[in-house]
Amino acid sequence: MVQQLISLLDWFGICIFSVTGALVASRKEMDIVGFALLGSVTGIGGGTIRDVLLGVQPIFWVEHPAYLVACVLVAAATFFFAHILNHRYRSLLWLDAVGLALFAVTGAGSALAHGASPVIAVAMGVASATFGGIIRDILGGESPLILRQEIYISAALVGALVYVLLTGWGFNADGAVFAGFMAGFGLRAMALYWRLSLPRYRARSGSEDSD
Amino acid sequence: MVQQLISLLDWFGICIFSVTGALVASRKEMDIVGFALLGSVTGIGGGTIRDVLLGVQPIFWVEHPAYLVACVLVAAATFFFAHILNHRYRSLLWLDAVGLALFAVTGAGSALAHGASPVIAVAMGVASATFGGIIRDILGGESPLILRQEIYISAALVGALVYVLLTGWGFNADGAVFAGFMAGFGLRAMALYWRLSLPRYRARSGSEDSD
Amino acid sequence: MVQQLISLLDWFGICIFSVTGALVASRKEMDIVGFALLGSVTGIGGGTIRDVLLGVQPIFWVEHPAYLVACVLVAAATFFFAHILNHRYRSLLWLDAVGLALFAVTGAGSALAHGASPVIAVAMGVASATFGGIIRDILGGESPLILRQEIYISAALVGALVYVLLTGWGFNADGAVFAGFMAGFGLRAMALYWRLSLPRYRARSGSEDSD
Repeated sequence: MVQQLISLLDWFGICIFSVTGALVASRKEMDIVGFALLGSVTGIGGGTIRDVLLGVQPIFWVEHPAYLVACVLVAAATFFFAHILNHRYRSLLWLDAVGLALFAVTGAGSALAHGASPVIAVAMGVASATFGGIIRDILGGESPLILRQEIYISAALVGALVYVLLTGWGFNADGAVFAGFMAGFGLRAMALYWRLSLPRYRARSGSEDSD
Repeated sequence: MVQQLISLLDWFGICIFSVTGALVASRKEMDIVGFALLGSVTGIGGGTIRDVLLGVQPIFWVEHPAYLVACVLVAAATFFFAHILNHRYRSLLWLDAVGLALFAVTGAGSALAHGASPVIAVAMGVASATFGGIIRDILGGESPLILRQEIYISAALVGALVYVLLTGWGFNADGAVFAGFMAGFGLRAMALYWRLSLPRYRARSGSEDSD
Repeated sequence: MVQQLISLLDWFGICIFSVTGALVASRKEMDIVGFALLGSVTGIGGGTIRDVLLGVQPIFWVEHPAYLVACVLVAAATFFFAHILNHRYRSLLWLDAVGLALFAVTGAGSALAHGASPVIAVAMGVASATFGGIIRDILGGESPLILRQEIYISAALVGALVYVLLTGWGFNADGAVFAGFMAGFGLRAMALYWRLSLPRYRARSGSEDSD
């Protein structure tokens, strides 16, 4: 039943990330097949890396091609409706935040379900949540979101951590999923809204040279 | 026998993509070892991703190191002979087109041979055909070919689709391979020659904001 | 016992590469979680690709999460101490050189231990040594080190080659590891110190056109 909840949220996260991939394609004025490729890679990329790292075979979308088909359809629909979003880049950031928090939890949950240790589960949550977006930004020629100043990777880390800790402490499964998602999304949302960032590394005089 | 034909064309595609990797290395004025690395990664990259995604072990070039050796030799030869090509970038585009069409068919054929469903086979054709070039462009610091305006990913998609459909309908195997290759290469060649592109997404007023 | 030596050097290489990832994060003024991600990806990235390509499951750091924890701790420490390095970029280059030579040998050794042929072992040495740094540079938005003029990939190649040849000829294992490391590091160090480069491809008149 936890698996079903996680699987359902995974579906939701995959479709949302597919939209973010399609929005990057729209910024690059690609054609509809480009939308489909960038949407699919973004939607299933993080989970694919998670499955490859965990040695899960077949990979989830090779076993259930419906995931891939959904990504393609969602991205293709975005081709026709992206102009409705008045502020596409802002939408991209918020959708990405929802996907980030969902994948942090479902990635960690999937790792635990495959017998991974808590440390690895947290790492898989972070990897699932961030790598789809990283691949999207690199393929789309965008400056990677992870390099932006606002809290990003930390939100995925906190979401995955909360979920894994609560699960380890024997919490109700739905509660752990909900708390993990809220922690991750809440942190990222606050960061976006108030432009929060953690203290960043500051170069000190004489500590940087160009070559 | 179909497997033999696909295997033969795979060899051809691998060598051609290795040349395109070496041509990017020549544009970056790398040394001969750089040619070998970029040639190898481009030549065997798409098939490697296909094998990893399908869970095929050992990966084709780990099982048959001759593929890797061929990539290295072809790329090294390009180091000495690239200057003969009067228009290197033009050559890169046309060779890339041949490799794209070959891998769309052999990638899909290889997936079917490993028991993948038709949807997955088409996806593997597209992935095999495009990811080698994507890795080449990213490692070489070039703007990815997939972002260019002319039809590119669509050609791989059509080639893989034609091959998988004809195979599914029980066509003669050689005929399916030939038709798939001609569809993919023909479409890409027309796109290059007449600068064809599919309708691309157009930003509408007010729909884009920089932050 | 060879395995133990290789395992020990692997630890050392992983921590060193983690520092180089953290130094790139410091150049981008990321927060401490960004340091941890970029450090981890750089430290364990090359070995992860090696394990995935060889089909080794579970991947080394999934089996022994201590590797991952070490990367995170080392990268986090770099967040606080990077400013002590007066010339961070210079330090990055030299640490990268040590990691490069270590991974060239341990990557090849690990491949041989998993029954790979000599050609594949050399390729795995080069892949382990270079891909962590390539991923670091791409994620960090830096120009990839492999594109720089000085000898780089060649040093990994020579280190892996010396190790695999000496091992094949039945040399004492410690000696082969030491000779391979010294060959790889020595070559890279000379290249850095004297700005050595192999003859690079030179465009000839008329052989390059921008489109």
